[in-house]
Amino acid sequence: MPNITVQLLAGRDINQRRAFVHDVTNSAVLTLGARRGDVRIVFEEITPDIVANGGVLASEDESRAEVVNRFVPEASA
Amino acid sequence: MPNITVQLLAGRDINQRRAFVHDVTNSAVLTLGARRGDVRIVFEEITPDIVANGGVLASEDESRAEVVNRFVPEASA
Amino acid sequence: MPNITVQLLAGRDINQRRAFVHDVTNSAVLTLGARRGDVRIVFEEITPDIVANGGVLASEDESRAEVVNRFVPEASA
Amino acid sequence: MPNITVQLLAGRDINQRRAFVHDVTNSAVLTLGARRGDVRIVFEEITPDIVANGGVLASEDESRAEVVNRFVPEASA
Amino acid sequence: MPNITVQLLAGRDINQRRAFVHDVTNSAVLTLGARRGDVRIVFEEITPDIVANGGVLASEDESRAEVVNRFVPEASA
Amino acid sequence: MPNITVQLLAGRDINQRRAFVHDVTNSAVLTLGARRGDVRIVFEEITPDIVANGGVLASEDESRAEVVNRFVPEASA
Repeated sequence: MPNITVQLLAGRDINQRRAFVHDVTNSAVLTLGARRGDVRIVFEEITPDIVANGGVLASEDESRAEVVNRFVPEASA
Repeated sequence: MPNITVQLLAGRDINQRRAFVHDVTNSAVLTLGARRGDVRIVFEEITPDIVANGGVLASEDESRAEVVNRFVPEASA
Repeated sequence: MPNITVQLLAGRDINQRRAFVHDVTNSAVLTLGARRGDVRIVFEEITPDIVANGGVLASEDESRAEVVNRFVPEASA
Repeated sequence: MPNITVQLLAGRDINQRRAFVHDVTNSAVLTLGARRGDVRIVFEEITPDIVANGGVLASEDESRAEVVNRFVPEASA
Repeated sequence: MPNITVQLLAGRDINQRRAFVHDVTNSAVLTLGARRGDVRIVFEEITPDIVANGGVLASEDESRAEVVNRFVPEASA
Repeated sequence: MPNITVQLLAGRDINQRRAFVHDVTNSAVLTLGARRGDVRIVFEEITPDIVANGGVLASEDESRAEVVNRFVPEASA
């Protein structure tokens, strides 16, 4: 342990994931006292049409259009 | 909160998902007293060959052929 | 399927859970075409000191004090 | 119950999954006393570039190259 | 990998869990070709009042009384 | 999004969790471009007798005694 599952909007590239797992693993070691080799992180990539906040699918949510377009441009094409 | 994850057979369309998240969010507000904007729902679409009930993969389960064919026709082509 | 996992703040009573699973199961049948007996819902009760939004633990988040106090009064005693 | 979710490297074939769900369901019945029909197993197939151990993505982890190549040859092509 | 999460009714003892993880890990090695040390299994113990099948909480489901009483006798005291 | 679930050995205190969610949220903003308010982190606290690595429950795993004793001293009393 720890097992860390990250559900996030699809569209981040491998450089972003590499940087994130580096930071999170370091923090797990420094703040949680985990052993580095025990830290396991899994990403679950979610498209905007299968996640909803406040009852509205992200692909149809004006308040999220900016962040959706940044990562999943084709979602609102 | 709440975070709601829905693992379901792939094949439902966006109209079905829109209707479901609308109902579930309303119920979370009315029955659980959740704040609407806090309700987050994520779908995980599962193909019949990666889920098993009673030790049998859904893609090979006669008792589930009807529901599998309805949503994932190509699964039994 | 579907498997539905609901992570929510601890403190709701069984009447609230009963009403919610009734609504969600009905909607899964009506909008997603699921078979009633296949719908499985699991609650994961979360205390405010083990969930964070925007980097702040709910037990220390002024913007969530109202909803936390409603369900977990002792959290801010 | 039980609900069993298996996050594993993509690339296993249906024969492997069939054998695994058979074994796990039998054991759930024999060792946990579960009812066979209640045992539900869902696989989540993970590519090596979205999982990290010890802060290193599996697709970039020399210590995992052998197992990654076995299941996801194209990952290191 | 694999990461295996087992949501099951609370009440199994450590001998049952020991036997189950032994079987599941062996099968992951033999049928899925996983490396033994990579197999991680986490149990999530669920009480009958926070899980529902077919819209009915297990603690109120006649069709599940037998299995609930076996593992969580106090649930129906 | 992102939704981040952290399964970890029980026993960390609130200061450790506060520091970890601060780091992880900052990194999600800086490396993944997430909006701060969208980042939701949930901890699932696991006791050593309900997690296994390589087929051995952590509460019975000599190779993990040191880390288990650090966080869950009573586990090996």
